[in-house]
Amino acid sequence: MTAYFPNVDKVKYEGTSTNNPLAFRHYDPEQKILGKSMAEHLRFAACYWHNFCWDGADIFGQPTFNRPWLAGENDMQAAKAKADVAFEFFEKSSIPYYCFHDTDVAPQGNSIDEYINNFSEMVDVLEAKQASSGVKLLWGTANLFSHPRYAAGAATSPDPEVFSFGATQVVHAMNATKRLGGENYVLWGGREGYESLLNTDLRQEREQFGRFMQMVVEHKYKIGFTGTLLIEPKPQEPTKHQYDYDSATVYGFLKQFGLENEFKVNIEANHATLAGHSFHHEIATAISLGIFGSVDANRGDAQNGWDTDQFPMDVSELTLVMYEILKSGGFTTGGFNFDTKLRRQSTSPDDLLLAHIGGMDSLALALKKAAKLIENDFLAEKIKQRYSGWNTDLGKQISDGQFTLESLANHATSKGFSPSISSGQQEYLENQVNGVLFD
Amino acid sequence: MTAYFPNVDKVKYEGTSTNNPLAFRHYDPEQKILGKSMAEHLRFAACYWHNFCWDGADIFGQPTFNRPWLAGENDMQAAKAKADVAFEFFEKSSIPYYCFHDTDVAPQGNSIDEYINNFSEMVDVLEAKQASSGVKLLWGTANLFSHPRYAAGAATSPDPEVFSFGATQVVHAMNATKRLGGENYVLWGGREGYESLLNTDLRQEREQFGRFMQMVVEHKYKIGFTGTLLIEPKPQEPTKHQYDYDSATVYGFLKQFGLENEFKVNIEANHATLAGHSFHHEIATAISLGIFGSVDANRGDAQNGWDTDQFPMDVSELTLVMYEILKSGGFTTGGFNFDTKLRRQSTSPDDLLLAHIGGMDSLALALKKAAKLIENDFLAEKIKQRYSGWNTDLGKQISDGQFTLESLANHATSKGFSPSISSGQQEYLENQVNGVLFD
Amino acid sequence: MTAYFPNVDKVKYEGTSTNNPLAFRHYDPEQKILGKSMAEHLRFAACYWHNFCWDGADIFGQPTFNRPWLAGENDMQAAKAKADVAFEFFEKSSIPYYCFHDTDVAPQGNSIDEYINNFSEMVDVLEAKQASSGVKLLWGTANLFSHPRYAAGAATSPDPEVFSFGATQVVHAMNATKRLGGENYVLWGGREGYESLLNTDLRQEREQFGRFMQMVVEHKYKIGFTGTLLIEPKPQEPTKHQYDYDSATVYGFLKQFGLENEFKVNIEANHATLAGHSFHHEIATAISLGIFGSVDANRGDAQNGWDTDQFPMDVSELTLVMYEILKSGGFTTGGFNFDTKLRRQSTSPDDLLLAHIGGMDSLALALKKAAKLIENDFLAEKIKQRYSGWNTDLGKQISDGQFTLESLANHATSKGFSPSISSGQQEYLENQVNGVLFD
Amino acid sequence: MTAYFPNVDKVKYEGTSTNNPLAFRHYDPEQKILGKSMAEHLRFAACYWHNFCWDGADIFGQPTFNRPWLAGENDMQAAKAKADVAFEFFEKSSIPYYCFHDTDVAPQGNSIDEYINNFSEMVDVLEAKQASSGVKLLWGTANLFSHPRYAAGAATSPDPEVFSFGATQVVHAMNATKRLGGENYVLWGGREGYESLLNTDLRQEREQFGRFMQMVVEHKYKIGFTGTLLIEPKPQEPTKHQYDYDSATVYGFLKQFGLENEFKVNIEANHATLAGHSFHHEIATAISLGIFGSVDANRGDAQNGWDTDQFPMDVSELTLVMYEILKSGGFTTGGFNFDTKLRRQSTSPDDLLLAHIGGMDSLALALKKAAKLIENDFLAEKIKQRYSGWNTDLGKQISDGQFTLESLANHATSKGFSPSISSGQQEYLENQVNGVLFD
Ligand SMILES: [Co+2]
Ligand SMILES: [Co+2]
Ligand SMILES: [Co+2]
Ligand SMILES: [Co+2]
Ligand SMILES: [Co+2]
Ligand SMILES: [Co+2]
Ligand SMILES: [Co+2]
Ligand SMILES: [Co+2]
Repeated sequence: MTAYFPNVDKVKYEGTSTNNPLAFRHYDPEQKILGKSMAEHLRFAACYWHNFCWDGADIFGQPTFNRPWLAGENDMQAAKAKADVAFEFFEKSSIPYYCFHDTDVAPQGNSIDEYINNFSEMVDVLEAKQASSGVKLLWGTANLFSHPRYAAGAATSPDPEVFSFGATQVVHAMNATKRLGGENYVLWGGREGYESLLNTDLRQEREQFGRFMQMVVEHKYKIGFTGTLLIEPKPQEPTKHQYDYDSATVYGFLKQFGLENEFKVNIEANHATLAGHSFHHEIATAISLGIFGSVDANRGDAQNGWDTDQFPMDVSELTLVMYEILKSGGFTTGGFNFDTKLRRQSTSPDDLLLAHIGGMDSLALALKKAAKLIENDFLAEKIKQRYSGWNTDLGKQISDGQFTLESLANHATSKGFSPSISSGQQEYLENQVNGVLFD
Repeated sequence: MTAYFPNVDKVKYEGTSTNNPLAFRHYDPEQKILGKSMAEHLRFAACYWHNFCWDGADIFGQPTFNRPWLAGENDMQAAKAKADVAFEFFEKSSIPYYCFHDTDVAPQGNSIDEYINNFSEMVDVLEAKQASSGVKLLWGTANLFSHPRYAAGAATSPDPEVFSFGATQVVHAMNATKRLGGENYVLWGGREGYESLLNTDLRQEREQFGRFMQMVVEHKYKIGFTGTLLIEPKPQEPTKHQYDYDSATVYGFLKQFGLENEFKVNIEANHATLAGHSFHHEIATAISLGIFGSVDANRGDAQNGWDTDQFPMDVSELTLVMYEILKSGGFTTGGFNFDTKLRRQSTSPDDLLLAHIGGMDSLALALKKAAKLIENDFLAEKIKQRYSGWNTDLGKQISDGQFTLESLANHATSKGFSPSISSGQQEYLENQVNGVLFD
Repeated sequence: MTAYFPNVDKVKYEGTSTNNPLAFRHYDPEQKILGKSMAEHLRFAACYWHNFCWDGADIFGQPTFNRPWLAGENDMQAAKAKADVAFEFFEKSSIPYYCFHDTDVAPQGNSIDEYINNFSEMVDVLEAKQASSGVKLLWGTANLFSHPRYAAGAATSPDPEVFSFGATQVVHAMNATKRLGGENYVLWGGREGYESLLNTDLRQEREQFGRFMQMVVEHKYKIGFTGTLLIEPKPQEPTKHQYDYDSATVYGFLKQFGLENEFKVNIEANHATLAGHSFHHEIATAISLGIFGSVDANRGDAQNGWDTDQFPMDVSELTLVMYEILKSGGFTTGGFNFDTKLRRQSTSPDDLLLAHIGGMDSLALALKKAAKLIENDFLAEKIKQRYSGWNTDLGKQISDGQFTLESLANHATSKGFSPSISSGQQEYLENQVNGVLFD
Repeated sequence: MTAYFPNVDKVKYEGTSTNNPLAFRHYDPEQKILGKSMAEHLRFAACYWHNFCWDGADIFGQPTFNRPWLAGENDMQAAKAKADVAFEFFEKSSIPYYCFHDTDVAPQGNSIDEYINNFSEMVDVLEAKQASSGVKLLWGTANLFSHPRYAAGAATSPDPEVFSFGATQVVHAMNATKRLGGENYVLWGGREGYESLLNTDLRQEREQFGRFMQMVVEHKYKIGFTGTLLIEPKPQEPTKHQYDYDSATVYGFLKQFGLENEFKVNIEANHATLAGHSFHHEIATAISLGIFGSVDANRGDAQNGWDTDQFPMDVSELTLVMYEILKSGGFTTGGFNFDTKLRRQSTSPDDLLLAHIGGMDSLALALKKAAKLIENDFLAEKIKQRYSGWNTDLGKQISDGQFTLESLANHATSKGFSPSISSGQQEYLENQVNGVLFD
């Protein structure tokens, strides 16, 4: 096969003075920021599905992309051609990691046996390609939402045979992820939700979901997979309502089934906003709950109510996200995955490269600016000062449980507490952040 | 004081043939439905605040209502005049319960001492009025969001003195609730959230919130309050984001602090929709999590992004809500509270009566229709049939933990599982429900 | 071909006592309401596309429906098989009208010539089928959004050849509509909008759009088509923003290009809510602007931000919509089209019938209840009384232009006007409406 | 009165190296950009209402701000004290313009006469203050939404006496605006909408609204006011639905009443997003319709469904807005008004200065970056190239009306048009814009 991306050999850092749109202006993998290289901080990954399995069709329109390797869809030869293009892209784009669903890389087949054989053969192919290219696997996952059998969910299906089929795919996807050195294993429950409460037993489905996740944890230990298990929250779409609505909801689910130390979340920017939260909120919330794991960096459109999966370009927002991540210690096994889609009109092969370059540069810039925020950490300073009362005797005694509600009331009454608020200084802080972003 | 509602003595059930707008067409308190009276099922309550403390002002406009008792707002005489009108209304409207915030019924005063004295004096007044009228207290609560000291939260305030002031109010409000025979005590964290993540420490605030709630539980047991503690979720407004976002979020919070058996939720229809959920969803979710407690029945506007607090009139939706509640065993200590506001143009005293009558009749009708749904329970039948696979050997063995992920995968593979979906019959069920609603 | 819907011969009215789910409980075509038959009032139509061209795939999932006629998609034989099933359905469902896009009924082909030939041949087929079945055409339209050539719009494409291709399809679709006795011709500009303002010239695209619509009007008169031209507003999806956002926006567009007497709107319930309006609002607004034409009755989901295209089941809302339509004189050439989709899990052939039956019964019930609203028209009475001041001398003189701003101010000042509001009685009116709906 | 803002004499430009938070880092009034000074480009205005009439109360909370001049609210002495603080602020903040409602600057009084006298006296005060300070009036307006008489609208009130009272206020506010040299006169119809369609006559209210606006135009010419008349669109809040929903809706209204050459729009960023549009969209749309006038720069919160009126800080978005404005020729009589509110916790007097400084610096920065976009105008270049087909013979002949739909179809058919799309390059353009923003 000839090259699908003939216009570039490998995307390189050229700095802001370059006029080459196929070069990085900010992402310099080896550049050190706060003691680690940019590559180590950002841990970029590209996805197999939107880039190499999607043809540009949407719900109102036919394919627009020229993807010659999709011609024979249910065919191993096509799967190998797809892998060739995928790894050509991973290498040329300088993205160190990739992610896949089982059925992205191998034909789903017409039976469990076909599925297993196809996937197994393609894992061999991927293993060889990883070895020769140096590209690594950030995470694997199983697609339990596209096949019609999953129309009513997989783990939460009313049919235990569907549950079992899903379990089968997860076993093989987890095993493959381990073999390919994947650093995480992700579960996104695209159909784990409901279309109508009229035909749904919420309690039953939740129990099934809990048991499924427990089985995943047991399997992880059984096979000695040392990566992180991740749940990706999403509030709705394709179903009316999904059980993994957002990080706080996932946290409650994990607590219910004793899983809060076994799973972390893979936060997608677009899913945060669909759930009514800012991306920043979801990151900060997951960190505050101790379940932050990894990020799908694709953004939504502020006016559209579905997953537009656009490339992350809002450096202001990304800087605050990066600031939270850095303050929490940075990624461990997680990273920034581009679960991003080209616009349907972006029909040139170069568009795939350009879009990833833009996303990577935006995050690299955000990293640099977040580091500046940390170097002169006026936000931390403000917070320290704002909450300083909790380091006084009163604050500590409350926190330490030395007051009952009544004894505290008596204390407040006898002291005649009459607290007034001091300025939250929100606008001042916003000004200061803009200073770091733009000066 | 002369009567504020001169046009009616007591609102009575007159049936659907009446032309009297100040009569019930459906709410017949003594009528038996599924073995209990309507009054016992519905447990209606009216709120003190929107009805008797609000003057019709909104953020863009001045008061429109003629509420003579509000003239001397910070004054005990005015508070007593307000109580007179409130109880005139409770009695005339045939609503058996009421609800209040501490500062609804008594002036907040200029110090803790004044607060305590004012409130104490008014609790005496309320006690006498309850005794003479037979009106009962569904729940009490403390207003920890209106005074400027709470601008940055109460339990989650950066200032422990504010936390302490809040604790003081809650002690007095809980004690009063107990004394007045209140069947529940509610906590709505109107300012327990953030305006900006830039000046907020989520983890710290969450710890404070957890400790506060633990103190509330301890106090409940200490004073021997036997009612239910309720948290009322709301996602945003007045703050950008509130910690009690929705039932699933509250559940996670309760689990984190070991409180899941101590609190239930008070679900407000309008808050459900602001959180991106249907009212039905929030009710069903709370029930499935075992934390359903009580309901604020006020609906929002589907196109407006703030709490419009309208009276519940959508009998179709209310029927499904009522169905869920009946299936779960009905209210125990909870009930349907009208945390509802008149429209700002509804300036006639009769409007207050008419609005409650409409809400009560809508819920009474929903109760009758929900009972019909239960009598021929095709929804339960469909669910039983749809999930019947979980009663087979395969289903039970999965549920009982007899399979590992791998052994289940092996089982599915050796059996060659190839499940297909059967119809979810959503449209059919919707037709059947409409049949019950309208035939 | 054997029957695809073997379980019914023809859906008939059986009244509310029936247990037959494949019968109408309310839609009795011949029943007279306010002097016209139900069939004449409601003018139901079924759509070709969602029913017979869609396989159950969504953006995250593969087909779930068994639609044998879709097997050979780009093939005339398949198109004829599809027409067989479609007309089997139209006849059996007792729906008097249907609607189609050119490329629903005929393969799009690989060139203009193929398109023309395929479509022409299928129009013959449709003509014969209409004749033998008695099914009539409510409206035809051209699909200018699915083919990749239309990815950047048709009339508003940056490429005049795409504009020309679109014009070609519209000529043929209009001609076919005329020949088949269609009562309207619809234009829905699915891609007439933008994905990004960065590459869009709004003024240029608007000029193109205006010219296109003028050409459509000229062609209508040239061929002597006596039906109504309809524009279907939609705010977004598939594009980020569409120019035909809502009725008020379309009105401004029509006024700009002198087309306000040539086009009416085809209002879709789901598009109304996506635009931030209630369905009721869009209907009432179009009527008040004199551009109300026809309705696509499919509703959305109040919590989902995309076109779910569900069957209309909310009798309360539909009653108010029906009330507005009746008050405006009823449909002329328009009707209620079901631009509705089955849920993806509704995989049984009967589901297609059941869903339409539910929608038709809901609208029939709404018609009966709207007629009751009109018989005792307390809404009109309230409005008459509320605006009665505009029938006084002052009101008439203002309306008739007898005051300048200044002379009116002088008048108000000299008279010392000090108007106060009287109650808007919203809750009372809601109660009364519920009385009609449910008593 | 002593100074309310003692910490600064006058905010000055100090450049990005300053550590003084009470200085401009980017806004250098005299600095020339594309041939005009920053002050001439940006034409900043501060508002009287949120800054000097609002006390920090919200719908759930009491005042938090210390605003001593609000003590005697309905009192001329207080009004003069307020004017002293307002002009102290305007001068110290270096904001050249201000804006007011009639009832911001003068007590509304208890009768028309009192209103007229109070306002007249305060206009004298303002005139003197403008003269001594050099502060100019960007626009005046009348508050036709706060007083209870306007609860059901002013121009669209069911009561013609309310219409007349509104007319009286507008006469006086227009006359005052002329006398004070105001460059525009604004109409924001805060209550010109409906709460419920049940009691609303849309057609009647629209006619009233049209007549009112015509009277305003007539009065403008009568008094020789040479400024611009502006309508400020807002979709909802305080009412359920407002008639001036967005720019496209206002355009249709203007066309209906022959007013499209008499009014322009005052676009508020927050209202754009409440209407489901981006701020950028509303600006670009108004420009494309020829009705762009002025801007209220306050932004909303992407997750909150009400007017949060925050200061504009998103330099990326503001740059694109500024680019559109510059490309359209820049402001004529319009400018950037801060219709902005402090956060309720921003209780320090300095917060008012800091917030405006941040907004001004963000817009100044946006101006500089927009100028860079124009200097190397790759966006215009892309658009020129993308639409170049419309400069070919085919494109011109279509635009010039030389084709009928049929002749164009024949042309396309005979030529065998088979257009394919070329890349829209959205991601590439986003990358390039980010380059200008951040490099
Ligand atoms: Co994702
Ligand atoms: Co996504
Ligand atoms: Co409530
Ligand atoms: Co509420
Ligand atoms: Co439609
Ligand atoms: Co649609
Ligand atoms: Co404004
Ligand atoms: Co505003």
